[in-house]
Amino acid sequence: MKVLVIGAHGSVGKILVKKLQESQNHFPIAMVRKKDQLEAFKEQGVETVLADLEGSISDISQAAKDADAIAFTAGSGGSTGADKTMFVDLDGTVKAVEAAKDAGIDRFVIVSALGSQQWLEDPHPDWLDQLGPYYPAKFYADQWLKNSGLDYTIVRPGLLSDDEAEGKVKLAKTLVESGKITRSDVAQIIIDSLDNDDTRKKEFDVISGDTPIKEALKELEQ
Amino acid sequence: MKVLVIGAHGSVGKILVKKLQESQNHFPIAMVRKKDQLEAFKEQGVETVLADLEGSISDISQAAKDADAIAFTAGSGGSTGADKTMFVDLDGTVKAVEAAKDAGIDRFVIVSALGSQQWLEDPHPDWLDQLGPYYPAKFYADQWLKNSGLDYTIVRPGLLSDDEAEGKVKLAKTLVESGKITRSDVAQIIIDSLDNDDTRKKEFDVISGDTPIKEALKELEQ
Repeated sequence: MKVLVIGAHGSVGKILVKKLQESQNHFPIAMVRKKDQLEAFKEQGVETVLADLEGSISDISQAAKDADAIAFTAGSGGSTGADKTMFVDLDGTVKAVEAAKDAGIDRFVIVSALGSQQWLEDPHPDWLDQLGPYYPAKFYADQWLKNSGLDYTIVRPGLLSDDEAEGKVKLAKTLVESGKITRSDVAQIIIDSLDNDDTRKKEFDVISGDTPIKEALKELEQ
Repeated sequence: MKVLVIGAHGSVGKILVKKLQESQNHFPIAMVRKKDQLEAFKEQGVETVLADLEGSISDISQAAKDADAIAFTAGSGGSTGADKTMFVDLDGTVKAVEAAKDAGIDRFVIVSALGSQQWLEDPHPDWLDQLGPYYPAKFYADQWLKNSGLDYTIVRPGLLSDDEAEGKVKLAKTLVESGKITRSDVAQIIIDSLDNDDTRKKEFDVISGDTPIKEALKELEQ
């Protein structure tokens, strides 16, 4: 499967590109918005496309034209303002979803945030208010994807760490507790979701745990 | 009709409350978030409720329990940051829509912004990018309302002015040009929309023009 990685230069995206490159059955296309990012991937022998989530849907659709699936790992990050939260985390997702539809790509796996699906619930967990507009942005973005008709998988990891991959997780549609998970495990979950058709039209929270990823995805029922 | 005015203390909201109070067939309930705003309306003999769009859906639903319709005129305004654009213009609308559903209120008239429906179009008008995250916030808020099942009317005025009411407008689902319109005329359009069942499930741009408001609403076809 040719997988367009949107947010390829991000912390999860970089690992995902590498894992896809090393996999037997997948092939990454790294979408980046800056030319220097593009060069770095080219040097690694990775197919790259230049497009900006703050640009037009047609630019993204053009970038996606050779892909069979989209893995959306982009995020505005903690150091930018709330305007970028709107433009990247919400609007960027929506544009990518619409671009996927325009390009005839059905499969769309996205990295969301644990708990964000509870945004409108009352009461919602207090910590949902701590990251300002990030959680509602992820919530509305995921809603758009769920209404899109695409074969989505929404991966909602807990607190991301750069630790070594553990390969074992705790995974459920909604977890009552939060916890950490490594970026490497999140990248692996994306790949294993692409490999498991039963994860289509599914969404789940995930943190570090005791169950091997593939098994946890198999056990997922909604 | 008892109309809950959300954003009653805003520049359009204040005029709307007054017009509803003076009307023969409507009755305003002013929803405000601060106690001093509440006192001011009480002195005018206006029924008031205290609730915050940044609070919970159930608080808003409770505030709406006696209403037959909701008129949403709230906005974060130009002097607050992009976080408030997310929390008030987008999230506040969504909460109000969900509160309307919870309270069993079908009718929902909202003040949006001319051109915002073109947000995802490519190319979209350049000026859509000038107000930062305001236009996407309005766009996504309106999308939520349109998907809600409520009998919405989405009023998308051009540049708001405090001039005297003109009573005549130019109105269409999408206008190719922009222009000014008075806040008083926008308030009147809300009332005339409530009085015209054919405006249910309708949305339109509107600026100052040559057609009396009631007539322009009658001519609206989509």
